[in-house]
Amino acid sequence: MRDAYHEELDSIGDGLVEMARLVGSAIGRATTAILDADLKLAEAVIAGDSKVDDLQRDLEARAIALLARQQPVATDLRIVVTSLRMSADLERSGDLAQHVAKLARLRFPDTAVPRDLHSTVLEMGQLAQRLMAKAGEVLITKDVDLALQLEQDDDAMDLLHRALFQHLMDDRWQHGIETAVDVTLLGRYYERFADHAVSVAKRVVYLVTGEHADELNQTAGAPGAGESS
Amino acid sequence: MRDAYHEELDSIGDGLVEMARLVGSAIGRATTAILDADLKLAEAVIAGDSKVDDLQRDLEARAIALLARQQPVATDLRIVVTSLRMSADLERSGDLAQHVAKLARLRFPDTAVPRDLHSTVLEMGQLAQRLMAKAGEVLITKDVDLALQLEQDDDAMDLLHRALFQHLMDDRWQHGIETAVDVTLLGRYYERFADHAVSVAKRVVYLVTGEHADELNQTAGAPGAGESS
Repeated sequence: MRDAYHEELDSIGDGLVEMARLVGSAIGRATTAILDADLKLAEAVIAGDSKVDDLQRDLEARAIALLARQQPVATDLRIVVTSLRMSADLERSGDLAQHVAKLARLRFPDTAVPRDLHSTVLEMGQLAQRLMAKAGEVLITKDVDLALQLEQDDDAMDLLHRALFQHLMDDRWQHGIETAVDVTLLGRYYERFADHAVSVAKRVVYLVTGEHADELNQTAGAPGAGESS
Repeated sequence: MRDAYHEELDSIGDGLVEMARLVGSAIGRATTAILDADLKLAEAVIAGDSKVDDLQRDLEARAIALLARQQPVATDLRIVVTSLRMSADLERSGDLAQHVAKLARLRFPDTAVPRDLHSTVLEMGQLAQRLMAKAGEVLITKDVDLALQLEQDDDAMDLLHRALFQHLMDDRWQHGIETAVDVTLLGRYYERFADHAVSVAKRVVYLVTGEHADELNQTAGAPGAGESS
């Protein structure tokens, strides 16, 4: 009976890894879609999100079935409950990638991102994708050091986000209000996407160590996470 | 044994109702703070969010303890798992109210909202507060009809959000980019806050009827939720 249990638990873990892979790919492709004004790619990202949603529903159903059938306690129980939370983080990340793609579609054949912000948005998109790739790796390896790295990557995302805002606020901004609105929302989508990737990694840290990632980072003397807005 | 169980379950329900009350009050006060440029009120909302976070942590710990000790199955299990999700919705709503308050603090002694948008933002704030009040009532009464109302209120929020954007995009906009960015984020905060209130109500519907709220609304011929952005 315990063996079936661990098989089922593994398969929930596999589902999370697959979700992380899908949403990481989605944010990368959504970024390409918005920078290249690629409608076809945007549509593919938008349509693809239903697969993430299906995976989440499936994963939740299996987690609940597992709770009912096996009635785990202590660490095992914590793993299942945490899996439910991580699947919510990943599902929401998929929504955010979809939002980026929807903005690309809304502005097609124009691009929502002016030329002088292409490199910043590209960096944000790539960093978001890397963060999610690392979160997926943390899910597989349970590597606490790698998980703690994600918080520093998230600091880099905050810096990019701030750079984006500074550019917007610059007196020389000449792209008008609509583009300012688009870029503001875009910045927020990437920032939130990164937050969810960090959240997944933090939850793994908590499962492995029983301590919250913030406490471990303080011990390690790592820089604070900066102000979240 | 079953009695202790139902007492504990009730107390989790009470915790959710209390969270809904706190975040509903927070969004109302944050709205006042940003419209009146009231720094003291903004600080109070910002500081008050830790109470919501504490409640969530407490509620989660009790839910997990309940799962471990009582090992509920079927409906009871679904109630506990759903409570965990609702507490996450409510915690996030608290964050969003805090974001509104932080924006008020950032722009103090100015106000982030120009005069000609005061009434729209006031309406969004009031609607957000009402949505959360209804969500709290749904938690208490399990009233499915009331829960379905929330989706229509959310449509009203979408309309306000669109009106806000139209105002921003208007050629006569004269408040500059910084204010456009502030108003864009503000609109997003209210919209997301409303989404979480609706989500809480939907989860209650699912617990009571075993059907998703969308399906029930379709049966009732209610208008669709509109495009979420």
